[in-house]
Amino acid sequence: MSATPTYDDLSGTWTRLHRLSHLQSIAGWDQASNMPPKGNEARAAAMAEMAALLHRMRTEPKLKDQLSRAEQEPLDDGQRANLREMRRQWRASNALPESLVTRQQMANSRCEHAWRTQRPANDWAGFVENFREVLACGREEARLLSEQTGLSKYDAMMDRFEPGMTSAHVDRVFGDVRQWLPGLIRDVTAKQARDAVIEPVGPFPTAQQRALCEKVIGILGFDFQAGRLDVSTHPFCGGVPEDVRMTTRFNENEFLISLMGTVHETGHGRYEQNLPRDWLGQPVAEARSMALHESQSLSFEMQLGSHRGFVDRLAPLVAGAFGDQPALAPHNLHRLLTRVKRGLIRVDADEVTYSLHIILRFELEQQLVDGTLALEDLPEAWNARMRDFLGIEVPDDARGVLQDVHWTRAAYGYFPTYALGNVISLQIWRHVERELPDLEAQMERGEFAPLYDWLRERLYRHGRKFTPLETLERAIGEDRIDPQPYIGYLRAKVAELRH
Amino acid sequence: MSATPTYDDLSGTWTRLHRLSHLQSIAGWDQASNMPPKGNEARAAAMAEMAALLHRMRTEPKLKDQLSRAEQEPLDDGQRANLREMRRQWRASNALPESLVTRQQMANSRCEHAWRTQRPANDWAGFVENFREVLACGREEARLLSEQTGLSKYDAMMDRFEPGMTSAHVDRVFGDVRQWLPGLIRDVTAKQARDAVIEPVGPFPTAQQRALCEKVIGILGFDFQAGRLDVSTHPFCGGVPEDVRMTTRFNENEFLISLMGTVHETGHGRYEQNLPRDWLGQPVAEARSMALHESQSLSFEMQLGSHRGFVDRLAPLVAGAFGDQPALAPHNLHRLLTRVKRGLIRVDADEVTYSLHIILRFELEQQLVDGTLALEDLPEAWNARMRDFLGIEVPDDARGVLQDVHWTRAAYGYFPTYALGNVISLQIWRHVERELPDLEAQMERGEFAPLYDWLRERLYRHGRKFTPLETLERAIGEDRIDPQPYIGYLRAKVAELRH
Repeated sequence: MSATPTYDDLSGTWTRLHRLSHLQSIAGWDQASNMPPKGNEARAAAMAEMAALLHRMRTEPKLKDQLSRAEQEPLDDGQRANLREMRRQWRASNALPESLVTRQQMANSRCEHAWRTQRPANDWAGFVENFREVLACGREEARLLSEQTGLSKYDAMMDRFEPGMTSAHVDRVFGDVRQWLPGLIRDVTAKQARDAVIEPVGPFPTAQQRALCEKVIGILGFDFQAGRLDVSTHPFCGGVPEDVRMTTRFNENEFLISLMGTVHETGHGRYEQNLPRDWLGQPVAEARSMALHESQSLSFEMQLGSHRGFVDRLAPLVAGAFGDQPALAPHNLHRLLTRVKRGLIRVDADEVTYSLHIILRFELEQQLVDGTLALEDLPEAWNARMRDFLGIEVPDDARGVLQDVHWTRAAYGYFPTYALGNVISLQIWRHVERELPDLEAQMERGEFAPLYDWLRERLYRHGRKFTPLETLERAIGEDRIDPQPYIGYLRAKVAELRH
Repeated sequence: MSATPTYDDLSGTWTRLHRLSHLQSIAGWDQASNMPPKGNEARAAAMAEMAALLHRMRTEPKLKDQLSRAEQEPLDDGQRANLREMRRQWRASNALPESLVTRQQMANSRCEHAWRTQRPANDWAGFVENFREVLACGREEARLLSEQTGLSKYDAMMDRFEPGMTSAHVDRVFGDVRQWLPGLIRDVTAKQARDAVIEPVGPFPTAQQRALCEKVIGILGFDFQAGRLDVSTHPFCGGVPEDVRMTTRFNENEFLISLMGTVHETGHGRYEQNLPRDWLGQPVAEARSMALHESQSLSFEMQLGSHRGFVDRLAPLVAGAFGDQPALAPHNLHRLLTRVKRGLIRVDADEVTYSLHIILRFELEQQLVDGTLALEDLPEAWNARMRDFLGIEVPDDARGVLQDVHWTRAAYGYFPTYALGNVISLQIWRHVERELPDLEAQMERGEFAPLYDWLRERLYRHGRKFTPLETLERAIGEDRIDPQPYIGYLRAKVAELRH
């Protein structure tokens, strides 16, 4: 007989949860990328039913006792970490009643589905009708999680995505950035206006864009035998680690946004595809935290994807896809990818302005969750900050408050993980450059394997064995999120652009 | 308080079953049309977990008592029919232990997935390794269902797809056909060999084929707001009534097979899309039986799709898709669609030879289920019958015993429903011609609405309110499957070809 019978029993429960969640993930991906509109009501009902079922399994009364008894069993380190993560999930689920879970799932599905047409139609009034219920559920969730964890309401929401992170900590990392970055951007933009960068001339047919994206994803080491690329309104990386579903969207007048968006998702996809295989199905095998996840997507998009060595490889593929033109020469392509350009859309933003898009959302969603900002005042609050941070006027809600999918799903507390991911990606990147002194030369030769091996060995393979900060320490020997490499990088980049 | 509390409770249980089955259906469609190969083990495990869960819900001990008590409640006709169908599902589930359900789901997923590459590789030996377990599970299922129903093992399997149908009945319908059809086909084929029919010249690009198929499906009244067309190894119609997922496959050297295959699936799709909306989620709202389902797909493919009026509409679309060529003129296209051509592949077969492909499978699978045919002897038994029935040699298993997906899923008893569907489709068609005297003229003008309305009103909208034969009687006033219209049609067709 096993020496860890209760742990084994729990492990079996989480395997079942994982398998059923697999169906939920695929149905969610399908909802975003395939489902015809009349299918949504039935899909929403099906997914709400499953959410309730999973919730019921995670809140089974016997789990409480089992979790305590398993802690007395002779577990190894991996099992102990796994048990810790089981308890974490169990605790979060027990804070919420099943009725709220079902109600929330239905509200989110309905809001997200309608948003797909409301966004292009610039229909804020229509959006609010569904969003009111999403927000009500989200606030109720925040209240219950706050009661249970003792954290503030917003911090309790953020803790779902980034265990241990608080808004005070985010403020410490970004408080300073918020002050000096807007001025810097104004200067750089003025300087750049006098620079010559050649714009690519379209159209860029969708079929060629798709083929190009798939080629680039292949270079980035994504395993197409265990994943796919499809199209959705809002790009994301979903599915399951064994079958990763990335999405993008195409616009025939522009190809760089979709291409770099795909490179971004590939950073997520590779993390998922390289999680510890022996533990798949257990909580300890999931990606550690969303900031670490975003550190991967953002470093793929910004450090790797805009690297001269990478752009040198990219340029002939791009010219091959769309025909040669001056804009697609490596030097110009690199400038297109690295220029600073104040814009309305977060996912299209460059690495310098990106954090301001996040800080805007971070500030607003704290107020939304706390109830200090009324729903009706949200568009104006958004537009005021865009003016303040980036000096641009928001012409319509489609390109303003309606642009992101996150709030339709009540994913409050998620946005800060992008900005933290940005900071972490620079910490990691600086460290990698020190540990792999040949990195620059290797990348210029198109040799990415040493980098990929490093990431797998030092980050991906740990899953959730350690806390987020312990994981960072294992990877780079630092146990805190340090904004200095990020700040230094921005300053250097801006200096380079200004000269 | 409701006057039917127990019935309402049961209805709630079946709504939950329907919602969870929705996720299973979409995951199954995805498995066949999207999933990358390395995703299969995890998918199979997820779907087996769900199959076990659904089975557990359908065999909950309290259901027995609830079903009895609900029968005492004051139900209307629809509710009573619904309760009858609940009991039917409950009884079938209770015949099988959960362990068999899980084992079978895993075996089928593995076999089907491997078959996708084993078929093109002509790898019978590899196939048998997985198929042995599929067959073992299927035989065990047949034994248990037989014990419970008192039917023979094969009939118990067939009853899952066609309630009330027996192999003796199938023999009565087809016994005669089996005798005279092979000779007739030999004569016709010899005659046709001297006829001139112009073969279309390819290639036929996949993108154009797909666009053509979508156009034709639209003419056939399929609602693309509530369904899709995708690609899979073996064409099927899946998904849920609110979101119907049809699949086809493309071959750039040939377009008619895929086009007519899509027309076939559209017959299924329209049935699903026109099931009684008010009852969706309850068993009574499902399509009545597989023979009735196949009668719709086969009449779309063969009576409607090969009708001169329809072909006249089709021809310019085809020429528009691939460029004009003599083969695509209406007259020649009609001959291509209606010629009798002995071939190796069932799904490509014309309406005259089709039944022989089915009878072959019907005979072999009865022996497989009974255990009177050893797995090792199956390819030779297949090939011998092809020689006997159609006078052709099977060059390899890829075009022989490995061609169908059904046996990988232990769907024994399904094939006869195709042949019965063929017979029923002619019965219905003859009746429609009498009831809609303008049908011929309408179709030649491209007016299909009167036909579609008739089908919805007389067949689709009943769902499972009545038994299969009662449903047939509601539609055409005949309460039995009568092969005479089918036989008459074949003879007339053959006579026309011969003259």
